[in-house]
Amino acid sequence: MAEQMRLGLIGAGRIGRVHAANLAQRVPGARLVAVADVYGDAARALAGEYGLDAYDDHRRLLERADIDAVVVCSSTDTHAQMITEAAQAGKHIFCEKPIALDLVRIDDALAAVEQAGVTLQVGFNRRFDPGFAAARQAVIEGKVGRPEMVRITSRDPAPPPISYVKVSGGIFMDMTIHDFDMARFLLGEDVVEVSAAGAVLVDPAIGEAGDIDTAIITLRYASGALGVIENSRRAVYGYDQRVEVFGSAGMVCTANETEHSAVLSDAQGVHGPLPLYFFLQRYEAAYIAEMQAFIKSISEGTPPVVSGLEGRAPVVMGHAAWKSYREGRPVRLSEIEDKRS
Amino acid sequence: MAEQMRLGLIGAGRIGRVHAANLAQRVPGARLVAVADVYGDAARALAGEYGLDAYDDHRRLLERADIDAVVVCSSTDTHAQMITEAAQAGKHIFCEKPIALDLVRIDDALAAVEQAGVTLQVGFNRRFDPGFAAARQAVIEGKVGRPEMVRITSRDPAPPPISYVKVSGGIFMDMTIHDFDMARFLLGEDVVEVSAAGAVLVDPAIGEAGDIDTAIITLRYASGALGVIENSRRAVYGYDQRVEVFGSAGMVCTANETEHSAVLSDAQGVHGPLPLYFFLQRYEAAYIAEMQAFIKSISEGTPPVVSGLEGRAPVVMGHAAWKSYREGRPVRLSEIEDKRS
Amino acid sequence: MAEQMRLGLIGAGRIGRVHAANLAQRVPGARLVAVADVYGDAARALAGEYGLDAYDDHRRLLERADIDAVVVCSSTDTHAQMITEAAQAGKHIFCEKPIALDLVRIDDALAAVEQAGVTLQVGFNRRFDPGFAAARQAVIEGKVGRPEMVRITSRDPAPPPISYVKVSGGIFMDMTIHDFDMARFLLGEDVVEVSAAGAVLVDPAIGEAGDIDTAIITLRYASGALGVIENSRRAVYGYDQRVEVFGSAGMVCTANETEHSAVLSDAQGVHGPLPLYFFLQRYEAAYIAEMQAFIKSISEGTPPVVSGLEGRAPVVMGHAAWKSYREGRPVRLSEIEDKRS
Amino acid sequence: MAEQMRLGLIGAGRIGRVHAANLAQRVPGARLVAVADVYGDAARALAGEYGLDAYDDHRRLLERADIDAVVVCSSTDTHAQMITEAAQAGKHIFCEKPIALDLVRIDDALAAVEQAGVTLQVGFNRRFDPGFAAARQAVIEGKVGRPEMVRITSRDPAPPPISYVKVSGGIFMDMTIHDFDMARFLLGEDVVEVSAAGAVLVDPAIGEAGDIDTAIITLRYASGALGVIENSRRAVYGYDQRVEVFGSAGMVCTANETEHSAVLSDAQGVHGPLPLYFFLQRYEAAYIAEMQAFIKSISEGTPPVVSGLEGRAPVVMGHAAWKSYREGRPVRLSEIEDKRS
Repeated sequence: MAEQMRLGLIGAGRIGRVHAANLAQRVPGARLVAVADVYGDAARALAGEYGLDAYDDHRRLLERADIDAVVVCSSTDTHAQMITEAAQAGKHIFCEKPIALDLVRIDDALAAVEQAGVTLQVGFNRRFDPGFAAARQAVIEGKVGRPEMVRITSRDPAPPPISYVKVSGGIFMDMTIHDFDMARFLLGEDVVEVSAAGAVLVDPAIGEAGDIDTAIITLRYASGALGVIENSRRAVYGYDQRVEVFGSAGMVCTANETEHSAVLSDAQGVHGPLPLYFFLQRYEAAYIAEMQAFIKSISEGTPPVVSGLEGRAPVVMGHAAWKSYREGRPVRLSEIEDKRS
Repeated sequence: MAEQMRLGLIGAGRIGRVHAANLAQRVPGARLVAVADVYGDAARALAGEYGLDAYDDHRRLLERADIDAVVVCSSTDTHAQMITEAAQAGKHIFCEKPIALDLVRIDDALAAVEQAGVTLQVGFNRRFDPGFAAARQAVIEGKVGRPEMVRITSRDPAPPPISYVKVSGGIFMDMTIHDFDMARFLLGEDVVEVSAAGAVLVDPAIGEAGDIDTAIITLRYASGALGVIENSRRAVYGYDQRVEVFGSAGMVCTANETEHSAVLSDAQGVHGPLPLYFFLQRYEAAYIAEMQAFIKSISEGTPPVVSGLEGRAPVVMGHAAWKSYREGRPVRLSEIEDKRS
Repeated sequence: MAEQMRLGLIGAGRIGRVHAANLAQRVPGARLVAVADVYGDAARALAGEYGLDAYDDHRRLLERADIDAVVVCSSTDTHAQMITEAAQAGKHIFCEKPIALDLVRIDDALAAVEQAGVTLQVGFNRRFDPGFAAARQAVIEGKVGRPEMVRITSRDPAPPPISYVKVSGGIFMDMTIHDFDMARFLLGEDVVEVSAAGAVLVDPAIGEAGDIDTAIITLRYASGALGVIENSRRAVYGYDQRVEVFGSAGMVCTANETEHSAVLSDAQGVHGPLPLYFFLQRYEAAYIAEMQAFIKSISEGTPPVVSGLEGRAPVVMGHAAWKSYREGRPVRLSEIEDKRS
Repeated sequence: MAEQMRLGLIGAGRIGRVHAANLAQRVPGARLVAVADVYGDAARALAGEYGLDAYDDHRRLLERADIDAVVVCSSTDTHAQMITEAAQAGKHIFCEKPIALDLVRIDDALAAVEQAGVTLQVGFNRRFDPGFAAARQAVIEGKVGRPEMVRITSRDPAPPPISYVKVSGGIFMDMTIHDFDMARFLLGEDVVEVSAAGAVLVDPAIGEAGDIDTAIITLRYASGALGVIENSRRAVYGYDQRVEVFGSAGMVCTANETEHSAVLSDAQGVHGPLPLYFFLQRYEAAYIAEMQAFIKSISEGTPPVVSGLEGRAPVVMGHAAWKSYREGRPVRLSEIEDKRS
C-alpha cells in the first residue's frame, strides 16, 4: 500500500485520545487528520496536539471527501447513529463496543453498513491481547484438541462511579460483555445458553442502583462445551484478566501481566509484583494491534477481525444473562432472539 | 501420650494398603495390629507384610478389647454398617468417604456414633493437602478479607472403568463430593444452593451408563459468596487439582504439584514437568496428615477435624447437584433436606 | 517545563532510528529537529519520516543555535570526538555506549564536557529496564540487606557477524560492558577486581578473530561483596537477560521477558513462551525511559543518571577482564589505571 | 530378588537415623538388622525403635556372617577406616561423604575395597534429587546440546556452629564438596581447573576460625565447558539449591522446592511460600532413592551410581579450591595429584 489511509476521529474522550496517540505513531499506513466532539474544546485540544482539524459537529467531518474511515469513540448511546451516518457517507468504520444495548438499533446500524458496503470493525480489543491471541491460536492449531471447558476470570481493580453504574446497562452489558466476546473468540463458536448467578458484595450502593458487582456465569456452547466467567468489580491486587481453555488434548491458560519480573525472597516469603492495574496499560498492545488490523482490513479488502455480527452477539448474551439472573434459571439465547421477532 | 493407640483396619484394598503403610511408619503414637477383609487372602497378605493378625470377618476384629480404633476402608456400601457396628463396640472410627449415598443411612450411623460417644473422622483427605490447608489458613487469618468467590478445578487424569461408573453414584457423588467438601472447608461455611451444568464429552459410554463426565457447578454460600467447581473425568496432562479463594482483601490460589522443578528452554519453547498423575502420589502427604490428625484427636480428646456432619454435608450437595442437573435449575440444599422429613 | 527541548541526532543507523522514533512520540518535552549522518541518504530518509532537517556533516547541526542537545549514535570510534565537539558547541549530550575503548580518549572527552558545563548521559539503557530498576530499588530500600553476591546472566540470541567481531573490541568491550555497568548499578558501588575465564565454544571463527564467545567473570566489589557474570554469544531460546542480588536479608532476582503468558499443558509437558529474542524489543521500555531521564535531567538541571564517569568505569573493567583472561589471574582495576599514569 | 539384603548401620547420629528410618520402610529388598555406635546408648535407643541388635563396637557388627552390607554414618575422620575394615570383612559398603579429606587415606580405602571385590557407594545424595536427576537426564538425552556452561547455586539457610566449622575442613571440603560432585554429575565429565574467590561476609567468627562463608568458584571442564558455583553459609529465605546447564541446543534449570504452592495476592504484592529450610526435608526423596540404588546395585551386581572414584574427585577439587583461594590464581587439579606423587 503506497498511500496512507486518512482517518477522522469522532469523540475526543479518554478512549478517543488513546486511539489518536496510537494512530499518530504506531499504526503504519494510517494518518489521523480530523477530530469531532460535541465538546468543541476537547476536539480542539486534541487537534492541537496532533495537528488535526477540529469540529464540534461530526457531520462536518463526515462530509470531507478526503477522509476514508472514522473511529467512533463517542458515548455508547450514539454509536448506532454514528455508524449509520458514517456508512451513509461511505466511510469505513471502527466503532468502540458495544454498538448499542438495543438489538433493534444494532440491526438497523448493521443494515446501513451492509447497504453501504463499507467495513465495520467493533472494538473488542481483547482479542488482540498477545496472551489471549496465543491461547486462541493454540485452539486453532488443535493443541488442546476438542475444547470442552473455558474459563474467563475478569475482575476490575475498582468499581466505576455509581453515576456511571446507573447508565451502564449493568455489569453484564458493561463489563461481562468483553468476556462474552472472549468466550466466543476463544472457541470460535457460538454460545447457546447462559446461566448467571450474581451478588452485591463489593458496594451496597451498586445494589441500590439496581446492579450487581459479583457474578459467575455458566455458558453452554453449540458444540456442547461448557464455559464459566468469573466477574468482580473490585480486585485489590489489580486488574485480573486470565483465560483457560481445556480440551481433549490439553489445556492452555494465561497469567496476569506485570510491569516487571523482579521477585524478592526474604525471611517472610517470596514476593512478586502485582498485576498491571489500569486497563489502558494492560491492553496497550491490544489497542495498537486492533487499529493495525482495521487499517489492514480496509486496505487489503479483507473482512474485519471483529465484524458487526461479532459485535452484536455479546449484547444478546448480556440480555440473556440479565434474564437468567432475574428468573433464576438458564436462558437460551434463542429466547432473546425470539422475543424480538 | 506415653502409650500407643492400637488400631484395626477393615478393608485390605488399595486405600486400605495406603493407610496400613502410613500407620506402620509415619504416624507416631499409632500401632496397627489387625486387619479384616471379606477376602481373607487379601487380609492375610497385608497381615504378613506388617505383622498383623488377619480376619475375614470384621466382627472378630471388633471383638478385640485391645483395639482402640478402626480404620474403615471396605466398599462404600458397607461404610454405614461398619461405623454403626464399630461404634457399638466402643471403637473410635476413621471412615473413608462417603459414609453412604443415602441420607437415612448416614443419619443412622451418626446416631450410633453419638450414642456410643466415640470419635468419628471422615476421610476427606484433601483438607490435609499442604497447599489447600495453606489456602484455608490464609482465609482464616483474614488475608483475603471477606471471601466473595471460590473456584475449585478438579480434573481426573483418566476416567474410571465403566463398570465402576455404573455403581459410583455418578460424578457428583463419586468425584465432585471431594470438591463439595473442599468448597465448605475453604470458607468454613455452608453452601445453600447448587446449580449444575453437565455434559458427556469424554466418553459416550459414560453417558450411556447414565452419568456425565464434564461439569461446571455454581455454588451459593450462606454468606452470599459464590463458588464454582470445574470437573472433568480426563485431563491428558495429569491430575489437575487447584483452588482459588477471592475476597475483599486479596486472593489465594494453589498450583498443581510436580515431581520436580526442572525446566528446559530450547529453540521451541520453555518446557516444564507435568502435574503428578496418580492421586496416591498427589495426596501422599494428605493421607499421612489425616491419619496423624485422627490419632491426635482421639488421644487428646479433641473433636475430629472432619466430623460425621462434615462428612454428611457433601452428600446432600451431591443430591442437590443431580437434582439441579436433571431439572435445569438451581436447587437449594433445603429442598433435599425437606424431602427427607 | 513550558517549552520543549530541541534535539539533534548524530547517526541515522539502527539505534539512531530507535531514538528518533521514541523522541517523536514517547518523550514529552523533547522535539527532534535535525539529523546528521555521513551517509547523507540515511539522514535524509530519516528526516523525511519525521519532518527533520538533514545534514551529512554533523558540524552543520552543531552550529545551530536553536538546538539544545544532541543524541550521538554514530559509530563507536567517533563517540569521543562527537562528545568533544558537541560540548564545545555548548550542547547537552546523550551518547551511546561506550564513549571509547581508549581511556585517554574518554578522559579527554570528559574533560571537554566538564569545561563546557554541559550534561552528558551515557547510553547504558539497561539501568532503565523495569525489572533491573526494580532489583536496584530493592537494594536501595535495604530489602536484601547488605549485598553479598551478585549474578548477571547475559546471553545473546546469536553471535554478530565475524566482520563486526573483529572491530568490536572483543566480547568484554562489546557485550560484557553492559554487564559491567549493571554490576556497578545494582550495588551502587565500585568493582575493584576482575577475574575472567573464557572459551571459544560457539563458533571457531570467533576464536580465529582473536575473540572468545563464552565467559564467566568473577567480580570483587569495594565492600567485599562478590559477583559473577555469565556470558554467551548464543542462546538458542532467545535473549537471556537476568540478574540476581543476594544479601544478608534476602535475594532479589528477575526473569526473562516474554511476549505473552500463554502456557500449554499437554500429554508431553507444560510449554511456555520463549524469552524475547531481539534486544530492541527486550529493552524497548528502557530505551524510552533513558531518553525521558535525559530530558528531565537537562530541563531540571539535575545530574544525569548515567554520568561520564559511570560510562568510563565499565571500559576499565573491560581492559581488566582482557588482562585477566590473557594472564590467567585476577586483575585489580588499579592495575589498569596505574598503567595509564 | 527373592530374599532381602541384610544391613548393619555404623553410626547412630542424625544422618544414621535418617537411613535407619528409610531402610525400615521405604527401601524394598533391604532389612536393617543391627546398629553400632561408640556411644552405646545411641545405638541401643535406635535399636529399640526398629528392633535391631545394638553394639558399641562396630567390629562386633562386622563379624556377623548374616550381614551383607553396612551403612557407614560415623564421624568423617573414621570413614576411611570403616570402609577398610568392612571391605576386609567382605561387606558391601554405603559410606557417607566424604570418604576422607586426605587423599592417601582415600586411596588406601579404595584399594581395600577393590581387593575385597565389594561394592562401595558414596553418599552424594543430591544426584538422586528428582530435579537434579531430571536436569542430568536432559543433558544425557542431548536436550541442551553440547554443554557450555553450568551454574550451581548452593546456599545454606544458616551457618553451622563455630565448633563444627573448625573441624569441618572448611567450606570447600564441607559444603562445596556436594557442589563439586554435582558439577561432575551434571555433565558426566571431569573438571580440570578450579578458581576460587571467597570472603567472610556472614560471620567474622568464621573468618577467625580460618574459614570463609561466601564463595564463587569458577570451573573449567575437560571438554572446555565452564562452570560456576555460588556458595553462602546463610540464606535467610531458606535452603537455596538450584542448578542450570546451558548448551548449544538449550538450557535446563531447576527451582527451589517449597512445602506447598499456595500464593497470596493482596494490595501489596504476590506472595509465595519460602524454599524448604532443612536439608533433610529438601533432600528427603534423594536419601531414599540413593539407598534404593545401593540395594539394587548390590543385588543386581551392577556398578554403584556413585563409586569410590566419584567420591574421591570432589575431595581433589576441594584441595584445589583452597589452593586457588590462598594463592589467588586458577589451580589445575593435576597440581593436586602431582603433589601426591
